[in-house]
Amino acid sequence: MKVLMSLGIAASLLVTSTVTLAADEKQIKEAIEYRQAALHTMGWNFGPLGAMAKGDMDYDAEEAGMRAERVAMLAQMPWEGFIEGSLRDDGHGVNTDALAKIADNQDDFESLQTEMQDATAKLAEVAQQDDFAVFRKQVADTGKTCKNCHDEYRAE
Amino acid sequence: MKVLMSLGIAASLLVTSTVTLAADEKQIKEAIEYRQAALHTMGWNFGPLGAMAKGDMDYDAEEAGMRAERVAMLAQMPWEGFIEGSLRDDGHGVNTDALAKIADNQDDFESLQTEMQDATAKLAEVAQQDDFAVFRKQVADTGKTCKNCHDEYRAE
Repeated sequence: MKVLMSLGIAASLLVTSTVTLAADEKQIKEAIEYRQAALHTMGWNFGPLGAMAKGDMDYDAEEAGMRAERVAMLAQMPWEGFIEGSLRDDGHGVNTDALAKIADNQDDFESLQTEMQDATAKLAEVAQQDDFAVFRKQVADTGKTCKNCHDEYRAE
Repeated sequence: MKVLMSLGIAASLLVTSTVTLAADEKQIKEAIEYRQAALHTMGWNFGPLGAMAKGDMDYDAEEAGMRAERVAMLAQMPWEGFIEGSLRDDGHGVNTDALAKIADNQDDFESLQTEMQDATAKLAEVAQQDDFAVFRKQVADTGKTCKNCHDEYRAE
């Protein structure tokens, strides 16, 4: 009886896992579009932070704090869009820069996400403190975490 | 002398105002893409809330609270993308459903934004309280604020 139950549980786990893996074309297209939209929205809101850090725009602690809070929250979002079968060369026909090697380096990919999320959380803390030197350093550090992942896993 | 200075100021104001109005093609394209990305990201995160409210997905207060917080923050974002010259029929050649009549009804457009933002803020409050009836009602009320604006200002 115990063995039968275990088999039943194993079988149901197998079904669940098959269902999870077999995203259909529509799901893949939507997942790619979603992650691109979330990253795009994050990039737009990071724009003024980069411009302030570079001196192309006056540093305004209130605006910077607002943008950095948005970026920190958006930094949580794109990753659920990297579903099975949605990378480059996965044959879905949707245009994406997400390299196929992400699939073989999932742990590293996730650890780069975490580094970026931590950097944006710290940026949200310091951006509104009206200390330009600290702000500028944290924008640079955050930008590096974006670049680290892009260099590794995004097509040029 | 006073007249000359006034003329000088008037001329410089004129230049400033022309510069402000004349967003170039690149700025218009980027503004449209940004607002579409922000609305897309909001829609994706609203999806599970709608599904839970309809009973297509189990109500999970933690997931609902997380999605609703995202939606409430995203509800602040798209509007800066509705810049001068970026509506439909404005001749920019970018595909957008944002009707030209928004320009003539700016106050109404902004008041519909505020209603939606207020509804999403309330949704973020109630979604995590594990009271399904209250949650479901607030999802419906929020959905109505989306629809109110789409019916009026978005192409079918």
